[in-house]
Amino acid sequence: VKSFVDTLWVIDCAILVFIMQAGFMCMETGLSRHKNSINVALKNAADFGLAVVIFWLFGFGLMFGKSFNGYFGTDLFFFKTSQAEYMTYFVFQAMFVATAATIVSGAVAERMKLWSFLLFAVFMTGAIYPLQGSWSWGGGWLSDAGFIDFAGSGIVHMCGAAAALAGVLLLGPRNGKYGPNGEINPIQGSNMPLATLGMFILWFGWFGFNGGSELKLSNVDEANAVAQVFVNTNMAAAGGLISALLLARVMFGKADLTMALNGALAGLVSIT
Amino acid sequence: VKSFVDTLWVIDCAILVFIMQAGFMCMETGLSRHKNSINVALKNAADFGLAVVIFWLFGFGLMFGKSFNGYFGTDLFFFKTSQAEYMTYFVFQAMFVATAATIVSGAVAERMKLWSFLLFAVFMTGAIYPLQGSWSWGGGWLSDAGFIDFAGSGIVHMCGAAAALAGVLLLGPRNGKYGPNGEINPIQGSNMPLATLGMFILWFGWFGFNGGSELKLSNVDEANAVAQVFVNTNMAAAGGLISALLLARVMFGKADLTMALNGALAGLVSIT
Amino acid sequence: VKSFVDTLWVIDCAILVFIMQAGFMCMETGLSRHKNSINVALKNAADFGLAVVIFWLFGFGLMFGKSFNGYFGTDLFFFKTSQAEYMTYFVFQAMFVATAATIVSGAVAERMKLWSFLLFAVFMTGAIYPLQGSWSWGGGWLSDAGFIDFAGSGIVHMCGAAAALAGVLLLGPRNGKYGPNGEINPIQGSNMPLATLGMFILWFGWFGFNGGSELKLSNVDEANAVAQVFVNTNMAAAGGLISALLLARVMFGKADLTMALNGALAGLVSIT
Repeated sequence: VKSFVDTLWVIDCAILVFIMQAGFMCMETGLSRHKNSINVALKNAADFGLAVVIFWLFGFGLMFGKSFNGYFGTDLFFFKTSQAEYMTYFVFQAMFVATAATIVSGAVAERMKLWSFLLFAVFMTGAIYPLQGSWSWGGGWLSDAGFIDFAGSGIVHMCGAAAALAGVLLLGPRNGKYGPNGEINPIQGSNMPLATLGMFILWFGWFGFNGGSELKLSNVDEANAVAQVFVNTNMAAAGGLISALLLARVMFGKADLTMALNGALAGLVSIT
Repeated sequence: VKSFVDTLWVIDCAILVFIMQAGFMCMETGLSRHKNSINVALKNAADFGLAVVIFWLFGFGLMFGKSFNGYFGTDLFFFKTSQAEYMTYFVFQAMFVATAATIVSGAVAERMKLWSFLLFAVFMTGAIYPLQGSWSWGGGWLSDAGFIDFAGSGIVHMCGAAAALAGVLLLGPRNGKYGPNGEINPIQGSNMPLATLGMFILWFGWFGFNGGSELKLSNVDEANAVAQVFVNTNMAAAGGLISALLLARVMFGKADLTMALNGALAGLVSIT
Repeated sequence: VKSFVDTLWVIDCAILVFIMQAGFMCMETGLSRHKNSINVALKNAADFGLAVVIFWLFGFGLMFGKSFNGYFGTDLFFFKTSQAEYMTYFVFQAMFVATAATIVSGAVAERMKLWSFLLFAVFMTGAIYPLQGSWSWGGGWLSDAGFIDFAGSGIVHMCGAAAALAGVLLLGPRNGKYGPNGEINPIQGSNMPLATLGMFILWFGWFGFNGGSELKLSNVDEANAVAQVFVNTNMAAAGGLISALLLARVMFGKADLTMALNGALAGLVSIT
């Protein structure tokens, strides 16, 4: 029997994952050049709105609808359902699909036009993400084969990262990143306090990302398991931050805030 | 019987509504000119502090005290009560009254002196808001007449908006907004990433604003109803954002971040 | 019997205390000069990561391990434990130790080198904080003598403040704070909206700091007690903000945002 406390837990976590969008936005604009900050912020705001709408229209059905031989879902389009439990699940999953799209926005920041990116985001959130998600979380062939992804390290992060890599290969480096003789020009972040705030907001939201994936909290064992998830998430981020800080000290001879922030994120992605 | 889980839910939502103050502050300072940012931030911080104090002194009693013929409350001033349940309700309601006052601060930003605004805020939170609130949520004549306001679209948002409109009519446009021949001078926001962060924080807090208005979560049906509220809140904001973005594209030929942010807010107010 | 709802409550509060780190960071960088903002942000990020790691290695055991005559703990180092309940407690306490360290970072902002500060932070979070904490919350001689600290006003805030005072006495004033003839040069904050955001985030997180210290919420009386804590926390912050605003008006003849922000914090520390 599903408990109302589980519902409470999952929707609480859903809005923690939601606020990660603000974290990505702060971090990406903070680490970009000032002239691009409006464009980067717009990209992040627009891609969240779009992801949610597209997921409502097609994505959710494609991912969680009645499966066609384990390959893709075939109903629940336009979120047509009378099952109240889907409400909770939709909120949580809609935040995840937006995260996958936003990971890409960071990678292509400062070198992709808004409307091209949004076109990609439609494809990402309406097809790529839900299709591969249907194979595993949707109960498709990958889950039949024994594949387990507790919190979305593969389904969300690797999916986003793969799309980001493809985008970066296509777009090439930022203008001015390399000199005519291949020398590297470091691009300084324009607003490091904002970027640091972004890191903290991401860390905050990540407790919901990983903790919510337990999906239950309504008995003592589940509650303790969630607490364990919180300990692990926190230690991973802290360890990543400190490791990156020390590594940068050894390699470059100085403390580097950008490295520390990325170290914390790397720790969070790893523990996921 | 009141459940402790309901209390947990309502105080959780109360602090989500609280953080909306930070959202308003970020959005208003971000969209104002740089020279006014300190003044705008001060206005937002001071009006929240003042609203809470005045509501504790007079407002709560006037709104929720024993009603005088359905027109206004007559006890509970200085929050004198031995009913423990009022604690939860006061926290939640104090955040709402502050929201009503803050809506006005945004409308009069950049063209009202701090102390004049605070004088108005005293009147707003000690008289206007609780008086009309007593008619409905306080069990007065309006609620007797069948008026229902689930989450405060009338009591909070329209009340704030009416006061804001009065303020704007009195104060006139910002200096420099119109040229000598009536031509419109667009006033650019001075810190768009901060404004975008504000939008995300408002969206985040709004889940508490609407979801908390259910006031209960301690059975499966209520929990599912809250999840439905979350779905609707999220879709409305996303739909508003995307609609405004596309509309601005069609009307002005370009993507406009300010319009997108306001679109999301419009969606949130509408669904409330 | 421990309820899963208590666990839910404490881990929820733990992440509210976590986000206070972002609040401190925003407030400290916002009130510092622009040239120091990266250094201040780095200090805050690094000290949180370090505090968590050191507390996991030594601090938790020293504070909560089997007590040696009431003076310090002697096991649980490297967080070696099979007791699931410790998970919840560790998450909550790790956020507290980080707060103690961060209080110092604010006091020494703009006049301490990063690595010196981090060396101090290791000592603070691995020895000073857990040692004195073991005397009270760890069940040592101070708690035997009847000492009670509900939410950490002594164990966290006074401990942090004492260390901060020692640091300030050692380091002296910021360069340029005093002229050659002892005249005071006010140092303006470089980003007041960010500082104001920091204040709001701290206030938000403080609900978890004080409310979570109830440690329980799983019956109606406890839940009402937590609601009371929320009322008190909110009123204290609001009262502090308004008092400081009025006092600054009387003493200096003008509204002062920095004073208002510090007033809110003073209220929050006082009610703790």
